[in-house]
Amino acid sequence: MHKKEMISHIEDICFKAYKASNTLSHATTHAKNEALEKIAKHIQKDKKMILEANIIDMDMAKNNNISDALLDRLFLDESRLDNIISGVYNIINLEDPIGSEIKRWKPSNGIDMCQTRVPIGVIGIIYESRPNVTADASTLALKSGNCIILRGGSESFYSSSAIINSIKNGLKSSQLSEDCVNMVNTIDRDAVGLLLNMHKYVNLIIPRGGKALIERVQIDSKIPVLSHLDGLCHTYIDVDANKEMAINIVLNAKMRRTGICGATETLLCHKDVIINILPDIINKLIEQGCEIRADKNIKVLNHNIKNATIEDWQTEYLDKILSIKTVENVSDAIKHIEKFGSNHTDAIITDNKQTAEIFLKEVNSAIVLHNASTQYADGGEFGMGAEMGIATGRLHARGPVGLEQLTTYKYQLRGNGQVRP
Amino acid sequence: MHKKEMISHIEDICFKAYKASNTLSHATTHAKNEALEKIAKHIQKDKKMILEANIIDMDMAKNNNISDALLDRLFLDESRLDNIISGVYNIINLEDPIGSEIKRWKPSNGIDMCQTRVPIGVIGIIYESRPNVTADASTLALKSGNCIILRGGSESFYSSSAIINSIKNGLKSSQLSEDCVNMVNTIDRDAVGLLLNMHKYVNLIIPRGGKALIERVQIDSKIPVLSHLDGLCHTYIDVDANKEMAINIVLNAKMRRTGICGATETLLCHKDVIINILPDIINKLIEQGCEIRADKNIKVLNHNIKNATIEDWQTEYLDKILSIKTVENVSDAIKHIEKFGSNHTDAIITDNKQTAEIFLKEVNSAIVLHNASTQYADGGEFGMGAEMGIATGRLHARGPVGLEQLTTYKYQLRGNGQVRP
Repeated sequence: MHKKEMISHIEDICFKAYKASNTLSHATTHAKNEALEKIAKHIQKDKKMILEANIIDMDMAKNNNISDALLDRLFLDESRLDNIISGVYNIINLEDPIGSEIKRWKPSNGIDMCQTRVPIGVIGIIYESRPNVTADASTLALKSGNCIILRGGSESFYSSSAIINSIKNGLKSSQLSEDCVNMVNTIDRDAVGLLLNMHKYVNLIIPRGGKALIERVQIDSKIPVLSHLDGLCHTYIDVDANKEMAINIVLNAKMRRTGICGATETLLCHKDVIINILPDIINKLIEQGCEIRADKNIKVLNHNIKNATIEDWQTEYLDKILSIKTVENVSDAIKHIEKFGSNHTDAIITDNKQTAEIFLKEVNSAIVLHNASTQYADGGEFGMGAEMGIATGRLHARGPVGLEQLTTYKYQLRGNGQVRP
Repeated sequence: MHKKEMISHIEDICFKAYKASNTLSHATTHAKNEALEKIAKHIQKDKKMILEANIIDMDMAKNNNISDALLDRLFLDESRLDNIISGVYNIINLEDPIGSEIKRWKPSNGIDMCQTRVPIGVIGIIYESRPNVTADASTLALKSGNCIILRGGSESFYSSSAIINSIKNGLKSSQLSEDCVNMVNTIDRDAVGLLLNMHKYVNLIIPRGGKALIERVQIDSKIPVLSHLDGLCHTYIDVDANKEMAINIVLNAKMRRTGICGATETLLCHKDVIINILPDIINKLIEQGCEIRADKNIKVLNHNIKNATIEDWQTEYLDKILSIKTVENVSDAIKHIEKFGSNHTDAIITDNKQTAEIFLKEVNSAIVLHNASTQYADGGEFGMGAEMGIATGRLHARGPVGLEQLTTYKYQLRGNGQVRP
């Protein structure tokens, strides 16, 4: 695609989404749910085509020697498509946040003031090669009254295009416009830069993916960004921790699923419980195939432990690796998290309520836990039903981004002739 | 100041604010109010010095042939300083939003989940030449637990420096750090660009001022921005409007104060009530010295009316000028607002509730009013007590930005050993 053609394509889909959002913003819950049902049915009907498109993507990926982890994310089969379809029905069953009253009051001027939830408008989502995100993001956006521009990873181009085709056919057979959902139809990397300049039509950019992608988007975007940079999560074992609980929680926080952003990457351990609590944890982790990197106080516990360097405190492994550091006390743990953490999710294990409250108050992360696994950092566990991701910035939304976090508000003031004195 | 020196100054104040915010975030309401009281007392004690500094600014401004309107904004006297001081006491009396529970629930996993209000962190504010903003913004930030970096207009440099000096002396005699409030100590324009790059330490930028300043900040900032671009507000007189009410509201919406962002700039009038309602409004406005620019249907009503051009629909006059346009119906009015409005504040005058609800629903502005003056777009009228400005973007906060809008939230999860299945 020529540069000129690409510019006009990006402008065209953004403008169409912008126009469509004026109608979608005020669509009834019934109209949105009906369209979602049509979308689910079209994905069901088009299964064969989607799987054929996925074979093309998989073949190209294999030729490009892509890692097994990435191939697994890219892969679709009947059962994964069924999951995508049941995800759409899941969103149909969620409560529609649009139009609800957040606050209503009448000041002394006698005007009835109502803060009402409304959609954001047009959302651009930039993501890597998981075809299911194409469906999840589109349907979350639709239910929350937002139009969406999708820019997926090049590896999933054919799979995503096939899914978008089904979504658009679903929309065409509904009351909503097919322009509510749009996909960038080129894998050219310059398209991302063009999209980030469409502040005239696009109200929010959500990047999902690796650190490099998200940092680039945050720096280049002229549109507000809601992103999670990374999930460098910590668990701190306090001097007053219950040994049994510490073992259970750390094993779960690290090993339940190592590839998710809520997995613990660094364990902080109070100096006085190293001898009592750590050996059991380390033995079990090593048994389960986890590599341990630790400072010299801890290294003596087991000859399989490697030396931790400063790089380890800065690394989100997303793998069977855990770094462990000795700390003096809870303040020392908080300081380490402030210096190396990513404002995502951090936990303390202690039976001392006062110490726990200091941790919950002073750690500035989106999610802070006492006596529970960091793997609870998940929209489903929060009761949100479905999520777009976990935000670690300070503005608009922090933590899991579900339907409500994809909305904003306006003030509707109802008077009876008031003029301001 | 040399470029190198300037870079190190900006980095230094941003880093100090970042460090101070870790303590200020958890300061008690009592500590914050005590510091605010000390600040009020120091401004009171330093009145003479502040007024002397203001004389320097005023003399320089006069030498630079600055407009009377700007000179008036810059000017300080005993009574304006008293207003600044009473503004500080006003903020002391406002409720502290920090630490309050927004939502608390316990999902089936048995973890007690609490969404708690916390400060944003460090806020940078870029504003024009009103010295009172220096005190207002600093004290609003302090009460909401945020550290602040101030970059005022060059014209008010000496006045603002003197006020900052009093604020820092107040902080020094309190439990809070003087690093909570910092001012960029150069009028070099490059300092703004440097500040907009401090995303490592600064969490939010709030620009206050003209359109050019705010657009520059929105485009250049690597830090999230909360801004109001302009207040191109509309009032629409519907076919079912009450004549008396329409006259009162339009006169107030345009003329009460023409220089504020909530003033009506364009009047939209249903074609069928031009003859009945408009003549009285136009006569009264002209009597009060207001210039009218209108389309040809309306121009025939009075020989003093000038021709409106497309530029008029795009202009925020902030002056005694009103543009008037004929529209076919409420949909036509909504379309005009969508095309030319600034998402700030728009009003409908009608006795027809159904028409009113269509307008309140479909106009996408931060504030929409039925049968009331657009001049109600004000934090005080909303019961917020004090405001940083009126936001017109879609994210984080819309409409008046008071204490609550200067906060964010985190999730505190309290478990008893939960691990995720």
